[in-house]
Amino acid sequence: MSDPRLAELSRLLPALALKTESADLAFYGRDWTRRWTPAPLAIALPSSIEEVQGIVRWANAQRVALVPSGGRTGLSGGAVAANGELVVSLERMNRVLGFHSADRLLTVQAGMALEAVHQAALGHGLIYPVDFASRGSCSIGGNIATNAGGIRVVRYGNTRDWIAGLTLVTGSGDVLELNRGLVKNSSGYDLRQLVIGAEGTLGIVVEAQLRLTDPPPASQVMLLALPSFEALMQVFERLRARLTLSAFEFFTDRALHHVAAHGAQRPFAEDYPYYVVTEFDGDSPDAALEAFGTLLEAELVVDGVIAQSQAQAAALWHLREGITEALARHLPYKNDVSVRIGAMPRFLAETQVLLGREYPHFEVVWFGHIGDGNLHINVLKPEAMENADFVHECGRVTALLAQSLQNHGGSISAEHGIGLVKKPYLSSTRSAAEVALMRGIRRAFDPAGIMNPHKLFDADADAVVPAYGETA
Amino acid sequence: MSDPRLAELSRLLPALALKTESADLAFYGRDWTRRWTPAPLAIALPSSIEEVQGIVRWANAQRVALVPSGGRTGLSGGAVAANGELVVSLERMNRVLGFHSADRLLTVQAGMALEAVHQAALGHGLIYPVDFASRGSCSIGGNIATNAGGIRVVRYGNTRDWIAGLTLVTGSGDVLELNRGLVKNSSGYDLRQLVIGAEGTLGIVVEAQLRLTDPPPASQVMLLALPSFEALMQVFERLRARLTLSAFEFFTDRALHHVAAHGAQRPFAEDYPYYVVTEFDGDSPDAALEAFGTLLEAELVVDGVIAQSQAQAAALWHLREGITEALARHLPYKNDVSVRIGAMPRFLAETQVLLGREYPHFEVVWFGHIGDGNLHINVLKPEAMENADFVHECGRVTALLAQSLQNHGGSISAEHGIGLVKKPYLSSTRSAAEVALMRGIRRAFDPAGIMNPHKLFDADADAVVPAYGETA
Repeated sequence: MSDPRLAELSRLLPALALKTESADLAFYGRDWTRRWTPAPLAIALPSSIEEVQGIVRWANAQRVALVPSGGRTGLSGGAVAANGELVVSLERMNRVLGFHSADRLLTVQAGMALEAVHQAALGHGLIYPVDFASRGSCSIGGNIATNAGGIRVVRYGNTRDWIAGLTLVTGSGDVLELNRGLVKNSSGYDLRQLVIGAEGTLGIVVEAQLRLTDPPPASQVMLLALPSFEALMQVFERLRARLTLSAFEFFTDRALHHVAAHGAQRPFAEDYPYYVVTEFDGDSPDAALEAFGTLLEAELVVDGVIAQSQAQAAALWHLREGITEALARHLPYKNDVSVRIGAMPRFLAETQVLLGREYPHFEVVWFGHIGDGNLHINVLKPEAMENADFVHECGRVTALLAQSLQNHGGSISAEHGIGLVKKPYLSSTRSAAEVALMRGIRRAFDPAGIMNPHKLFDADADAVVPAYGETA
Repeated sequence: MSDPRLAELSRLLPALALKTESADLAFYGRDWTRRWTPAPLAIALPSSIEEVQGIVRWANAQRVALVPSGGRTGLSGGAVAANGELVVSLERMNRVLGFHSADRLLTVQAGMALEAVHQAALGHGLIYPVDFASRGSCSIGGNIATNAGGIRVVRYGNTRDWIAGLTLVTGSGDVLELNRGLVKNSSGYDLRQLVIGAEGTLGIVVEAQLRLTDPPPASQVMLLALPSFEALMQVFERLRARLTLSAFEFFTDRALHHVAAHGAQRPFAEDYPYYVVTEFDGDSPDAALEAFGTLLEAELVVDGVIAQSQAQAAALWHLREGITEALARHLPYKNDVSVRIGAMPRFLAETQVLLGREYPHFEVVWFGHIGDGNLHINVLKPEAMENADFVHECGRVTALLAQSLQNHGGSISAEHGIGLVKKPYLSSTRSAAEVALMRGIRRAFDPAGIMNPHKLFDADADAVVPAYGETA
């Protein structure tokens, strides 16, 4: 603790846990991206709102940048600390604070893991319906910071739709209790909404009031094999009209190849180009069989299986949810893009041509949430290629993809956030006037520019720490 | 058109319709509040985004304040123009611009009436589910400006939940296309959300992309008579657990008295202290009868009727929806407050004591959306009392009510907005730090302070027009 700034922090907040071991700096200084070398000043692990507030005031006085930190499962570098920042980990603030039955609200600290929230909701006979594969390690605070989406958006919407209240420590050190769980509140700008998706650039979310809802009826899980991408949108629209869908996820043969290579059992004897995992209310099992029959007849699907047990359902889901892990060793360059659902076929056709032309020697793995207009495009690094060269090459093609997204009114980030990774492409999704407004808003919340500098966009006050280079 | 500023506006936008007749100034210069004397400079009726943009640029150059204007059905004075402002009426921008089937999105101009949106949605076999009594005259732009709620919130949420995209002309004259109908878009601050509920202080909403959904199954409407307010929350929780509610509205015997005096037929031979109109999916008619039976047995309801026809359902709904009109001739002072649903019983008990003590000679009529924690408290003006004295006296008591709301974590405006009427009480709902942030945000969108000045809160730049006195 030789740094005088840290000594001062310890003097101000004697009970605050701080870590400065190099293993800790490395562990807490990065997220699931691997492009930057972690180099934080230290890690603070506050256990109360007062400690968070004290940290922010200290940071303002000392001009130290802060990086709010949840489960660090982010894929855009939003939680990277590589320039001498203090990482503020919420991992000790991970408790349920209360449950309001009439309101169906669960109040939690922001460091709570998503899966723990799921369990707490079930304990009250209700569900918190936002869900995705990183549920065991990601935190609610991080979910809020990126307005996380996931696999149930087609039915339940994004994180935003389930946040009834937030407690925020702003970049100025003010504690705001935003919306306080009200259903109706027309009393000026809804700052809660502004904080959701702000990637920690306006302040640190310390508590949240989560809306819960009734569990759906028992569900069924079905895997479909499709002959073409063109069939995909039609299958989606037909199933949506007949079944109550809670998920509709697609992936390609290449994705299945990697999951199978990673240990999963192949679902069919034959190979097909496209697959869909879909989950829907199981209250009329005949409807699913009937729907499958008409899809088969129309040649929109070529094979399929309906899970007959929980274990089989889990196995089918693993084919989709295991993709990210199966790809990890190939250091994939990840694109997470969205367009309006109706714009998907044309955007996709264009993108397939673009990537085929620009990436002739790279393997590209597609999957995503087709019912939300959200595609994940993973480009795998050839083993022989240097990572820096690979990232550079992918960046060049991403610029072309961003141009195509702009033409189709899409977004360069559907659910991962902008962070550091997508920052060069923000202008494809948000106009210069919008970015100028965001800059003005950031200034109001964080005049000294201490909150997660250089993430999302460069603010005027971001001079507190130097800009990020790609150093790993 | 003797005013040189208007002459310049006509020169810049020769096709722009302008009205300056005194009857027009009076008509367009006020909303459903009657506390301010209309005195706008003129009325502009643009027919395109370009004209709206031209008006905003002119207003910046000439330092003329603008008041965006929809159906002017607001109850908080948000659309009042009493200080020489230019009213910008969107009434000529009232068309459907497109429908995207795969996305279930209806794109409309902001001046379209809510009821016309309902009709347009039905034309595609879908519904736009936000609804309230002023549907025939209120506009979508106004709904967005106040994040309007209404009678279906318990099932479908507020206006916010149905806005997939917005086109805004900011106070600086920039045209922003916010979110463009995307389901998932994690690319920085969601400015769309900031504009919803901003009461025209950040810019003028000119177009919106509205989400549509499937029509619910055929519904049933039931009227219940309750012995006490204590029973109300229990009836709500029990019915919510057994039926799929789309509305749960309550009103008192005094409310029924006024609607009956205004021509409605009384539903029961006897008088009861509290009534509930509830609507729910009619797919299991026995469930409703069964639920009613158990409520009767538990003495939570004392009488009830289930509509047997569309006409009877409409008659039951009229008992609730006719209240505002029936009260209008009594020049009611309106409170529109909310608390968490679970906080309702204690807040209500306290409020009943407060109003009984402070308003011994005033008639107080209660109704509201109990499932949303939203109460409408209407105080009727005694005939012999001067309106100014009445408003002054009501203001004194509203300050006490605001204090009670603050203690219970509630809001001084659930769905009407702050406008001019609730501005003195904003601090009961939003902290000084929040208001300071709102001021900073307003500055970013509207540096010259031309957008609906003095509404919601006083901005630094609001010197463009003088502050509002209560002049009518």
